[in-house]
Amino acid sequence: MPERVEVRQSVLKENDRIAGELRQALAGRQTLCLNLVSSPGAGKTSILEGTLDALRQTSVRAAVVTGDIQTERDADRLRRYGFPALQITTGGTCHLDASMVERSLKELPPGGLDILFIENVGNLVCPASYDLGEDAKVVVLSVPEGDDKPLKYPGIFRRARLMLLHKIDLLPYTRFNRDAAIADARRVNPEIEVVETSCLAEPGLGAWLRWIEKRLADKRQTGRPARA
Amino acid sequence: MPERVEVRQSVLKENDRIAGELRQALAGRQTLCLNLVSSPGAGKTSILEGTLDALRQTSVRAAVVTGDIQTERDADRLRRYGFPALQITTGGTCHLDASMVERSLKELPPGGLDILFIENVGNLVCPASYDLGEDAKVVVLSVPEGDDKPLKYPGIFRRARLMLLHKIDLLPYTRFNRDAAIADARRVNPEIEVVETSCLAEPGLGAWLRWIEKRLADKRQTGRPARA
Repeated sequence: MPERVEVRQSVLKENDRIAGELRQALAGRQTLCLNLVSSPGAGKTSILEGTLDALRQTSVRAAVVTGDIQTERDADRLRRYGFPALQITTGGTCHLDASMVERSLKELPPGGLDILFIENVGNLVCPASYDLGEDAKVVVLSVPEGDDKPLKYPGIFRRARLMLLHKIDLLPYTRFNRDAAIADARRVNPEIEVVETSCLAEPGLGAWLRWIEKRLADKRQTGRPARA
Repeated sequence: MPERVEVRQSVLKENDRIAGELRQALAGRQTLCLNLVSSPGAGKTSILEGTLDALRQTSVRAAVVTGDIQTERDADRLRRYGFPALQITTGGTCHLDASMVERSLKELPPGGLDILFIENVGNLVCPASYDLGEDAKVVVLSVPEGDDKPLKYPGIFRRARLMLLHKIDLLPYTRFNRDAAIADARRVNPEIEVVETSCLAEPGLGAWLRWIEKRLADKRQTGRPARA
């Protein structure tokens, strides 16, 4: 269906243009921007809740933009930590695009921002194609989803800088092969970094928080978050 | 972007036309067709493995069509049970459409078929919009995904006849509220049926296998699977 492909390509091209502007604007303000992508229910909102909870002990100025097909639930959950949390309700669209993020950022209270988290719509497929002006895509793979995901959804693993192996506390109750998951993620993206996390048990979110801290420091020094 | 909306509407209309033909062809052959939809990693392939394993103790003639973005892994897993399993590799598309299923069915060995399982691409969003000529959509919600999914992804829960509450053995290790999940699913779809399953522990797949048996019997009697 060539019409459909053409429309899609022009949509992606226009998206890339807006994302480029967003990236420049965020760089000008020294704001680190992370775009979190995962399946529905992998744990993005819970990770962000834990992250914001930790950041309120620091001087870091954070904000979240969260995408959802229908409800305002995630922003409600995230607002409790005292940082701005904006909901984008996509009304059926299965991913965020750069223009949605751009419009949403206009609603942020004025003032500097050290870090902007974008919580994408729960979907491992379509969000991979949409640049949102982020410094890094972070793919969250939760253990109960299975270790085959990096090869089944290579697009997002190829484009992510970091994979969070989340709900790692469920390893004993599942058939998840951690080594295979990491090896497969590195097969599609040799440079992907891996951090293990859990919101309910050890090891908690410590390694992820340190990863963010390092990226924030890099951004302040160079304007660009360097690789670990 | 009105062009985009128009293209999408004409795509869906053409899909519905082909799905209607498929539905008629399957009804003519008395084949029950179930379209399984879930997030990536909710457990569709494992459920189908357990189902085919059980069906080979019976006289039921089954086949599976399984959709995937990139790999042939699922069909490989499913072929071990002695039933035909056809892989549709969508090459980036985030859902199956009726024309993909129609083309795929031409590759099935000739002869009657009592049940055709369609395993959709792992995605709670886009597959909801595509009729594949099935008798029923079955949405698989796995416990570790969280109980908020019926309200966050209402489209698929509204269109499903059955919700499998899967990986129910993980209830003690998660914060999943089973009553809330069922109540919310019924809020978007008062007629949805609910069956609890696990591939690794009790209660196993028994209730799901009985649900299929009942649908097969209904289909044989009336040409249409009645509600429970």
